[in-house]
Amino acid sequence: MRMYDVIKKKRDGGVLDKPEIDFFVKGYTKGEIPDEQASALLMAIFFQGMNTEETVNLTLAIARSGDTVDLSGIKGYKADKHSTGGVGDKTTLIVAPIVAAAGVKVAKMSGRGLGHTGGTVDKLEAIPGYQTTLTQERFFEIVSDVGCSLIGQSGNLAPADKKLYALRDVTATVDKLPLIASSIMGKKLASGDDGIVLDVKVGSGAFNKTFDEGLALAKAMVSIGNRAGKNTRAIISNMDKPLGRAVGNALEVKEALEILKGGGDKELKDLCIELSAAMLNVAGLGEMAECRATAQGKIDSGEAFHIFRKMVRAHGGNVEYIDNPEKFVIGPEKHEVLSQREGYITKMDTEKYGHASLVLGAGRNTKEDKIDFGAGLIIKKKTGDYVRAGDVLAVLYSKSRDTFDEAENNILSAVTIGATAPTPVPIILGKVK
Amino acid sequence: MRMYDVIKKKRDGGVLDKPEIDFFVKGYTKGEIPDEQASALLMAIFFQGMNTEETVNLTLAIARSGDTVDLSGIKGYKADKHSTGGVGDKTTLIVAPIVAAAGVKVAKMSGRGLGHTGGTVDKLEAIPGYQTTLTQERFFEIVSDVGCSLIGQSGNLAPADKKLYALRDVTATVDKLPLIASSIMGKKLASGDDGIVLDVKVGSGAFNKTFDEGLALAKAMVSIGNRAGKNTRAIISNMDKPLGRAVGNALEVKEALEILKGGGDKELKDLCIELSAAMLNVAGLGEMAECRATAQGKIDSGEAFHIFRKMVRAHGGNVEYIDNPEKFVIGPEKHEVLSQREGYITKMDTEKYGHASLVLGAGRNTKEDKIDFGAGLIIKKKTGDYVRAGDVLAVLYSKSRDTFDEAENNILSAVTIGATAPTPVPIILGKVK
Repeated sequence: MRMYDVIKKKRDGGVLDKPEIDFFVKGYTKGEIPDEQASALLMAIFFQGMNTEETVNLTLAIARSGDTVDLSGIKGYKADKHSTGGVGDKTTLIVAPIVAAAGVKVAKMSGRGLGHTGGTVDKLEAIPGYQTTLTQERFFEIVSDVGCSLIGQSGNLAPADKKLYALRDVTATVDKLPLIASSIMGKKLASGDDGIVLDVKVGSGAFNKTFDEGLALAKAMVSIGNRAGKNTRAIISNMDKPLGRAVGNALEVKEALEILKGGGDKELKDLCIELSAAMLNVAGLGEMAECRATAQGKIDSGEAFHIFRKMVRAHGGNVEYIDNPEKFVIGPEKHEVLSQREGYITKMDTEKYGHASLVLGAGRNTKEDKIDFGAGLIIKKKTGDYVRAGDVLAVLYSKSRDTFDEAENNILSAVTIGATAPTPVPIILGKVK
Repeated sequence: MRMYDVIKKKRDGGVLDKPEIDFFVKGYTKGEIPDEQASALLMAIFFQGMNTEETVNLTLAIARSGDTVDLSGIKGYKADKHSTGGVGDKTTLIVAPIVAAAGVKVAKMSGRGLGHTGGTVDKLEAIPGYQTTLTQERFFEIVSDVGCSLIGQSGNLAPADKKLYALRDVTATVDKLPLIASSIMGKKLASGDDGIVLDVKVGSGAFNKTFDEGLALAKAMVSIGNRAGKNTRAIISNMDKPLGRAVGNALEVKEALEILKGGGDKELKDLCIELSAAMLNVAGLGEMAECRATAQGKIDSGEAFHIFRKMVRAHGGNVEYIDNPEKFVIGPEKHEVLSQREGYITKMDTEKYGHASLVLGAGRNTKEDKIDFGAGLIIKKKTGDYVRAGDVLAVLYSKSRDTFDEAENNILSAVTIGATAPTPVPIILGKVK
């Protein structure tokens, strides 16, 4: 088989068969197929697309390109959850202990990621002592004992995806549905879970800007997951405003604890309940309504909080911070962003809130950047709120006051204020089963 | 400027401006833009195309990517001729002295090329002693004294084209009109001539299989040439059968000499007269009819032959071979391919004749292959001829009888024999001015 012929076939609108896709993914991962041929194929796929069969085969080839995790040593149903990413998304910290409290195992490996804040792993590391690197034995032990364990990605999972993503990133071939779907699902399928719940975000703070885009991606991923033998479903959620109130690392852990203690932001809680319920539902624990009630019950009873605390302790984390979240060092510098106008907030450019968080020190621009766990912001007013001039829109936290000017400008330019209240948009926009 | 943005713009159907095209061609030639980004752009161009403005700018960027030849030291009008390539094309050897005899200078650098036979330079080297590598001073001197000089390409002409062509070759992005046209014309524009005549071949032995393809390429190239300030025109000629009777190196020199002496194959002569006339016409020496008469006159008077002989002598070639072409060593092994059926030859797969020539030793498979100047074939029967079983279709020449089986199979499978005579197709199919 020659890569030239594979490129030409796709270029001319042909359907690649499984051997051709395997040849490409294996050869490229091994370095036998050069970057220039891979990028030519990616661009041809950009124009000609891929059908479901091709997308499934590409996903499976990516999933099998490196190590795969065998979770069969852990008893019970293992469910995974994946979010396409947004600003203020701390749902994993909340959903994992809720689901575990209901008897479904969560053995989750998360990334660090570049972005406005750290990834789930970075947020966990904001808890002093929390170890995100464990032996597989210890990881499985914690999942079995506690019900859930959240660690960093280790091993050589889906190396084809890493290589392909880096290539797509410089060749303008990122935003094409079969490529996005196979990239996400390739990693998920390598993780060895029985069921997968996807949280596809849409809006100004998400990769997918419109509902239709998000729906198409959700459908593609659910179809891939189900065809690969994983019970898969997706929730499409609103990212036209930051999720919850906190953006940052320690700040988000604190907000997660609020929810686990029965308080906190209603939309954030609603989404966490929905995601938890979906995970219980894929595990066969009942209809969605029943599962929602179960999830809510696990918060109300304190079991979810208790499991989170147990997980932190098992990972070597200092539970004093869990019991007394005021111990987290935030800031220490602080600055209030005041509204300059009066009216309804009709729109938030969520991406700019994310950028403010990055400026404050909560995220990474490059892999080498060090995250400041205490940096970030608390959002006081969101879309639909009525504000007066001088009202606090957000409170900024950083190690350095030098960051406040740029962060403040981001927030002020992110907010659109108008005379009439906007139509409320629910946090959960749709589902794909 | 970022290459990513250039790729994305073309991917999304945008029109690249001159600075963007220059940025790409310069950066890629220097190695600052990596292969994977260049191939992504080429594939995007494959799908989105390029308008005339973009194609002209790409061509100019290629032409200026390395050395350019300054022919201003040579007095008189300098005309160039380029063929898109076919089987048995020895027109340069005939046209250059005809045109020079009429007072238009031909300072032509030709390639060796991979193919069924060598390129023009290889054919010339079949003349013992002929030097194809000269100093620029001596090259210009011969052009000024004799009227024409045919040498090999030297210097770093259009390095962008070399790099881009090699990349297109492995990424299935060769056959796209703006890329083909800019590749050919980029080299031509670097050669410093005042006028250019293009011989675009169409048919079973050419890159362009159909007249419409050839016409589109001819139009694109003529438009580029004229917009770049060169008086340019194209002839579209028939390559549904080999050109003339000889395929090989020494064999083609001998056939060229026959034409220059006033004999030879009528179609080959007609095409040479037409190409010569077009070169005289772009030089402003009269209307086409007048120029055709001039060209024919230069054969009839023996002036064209005399100039060819003078050029060979100036290049160090042994003119005894020009005066007595039977001195050329042909073969020495010889084999006649006999027709196995009776009827009209209705079709010739010209590519297969080319392949036979390659098998016999007249061409190169890889750059390192050594050409056997005495190898090749003489075609005795062509499309439209009536043959009886046992008639000689072609005579094969090689150093080794081992090559005859494969070459014979190529010829036999190349010929279609039918009951009715095919409609004659003229050698000159069209013109673009």
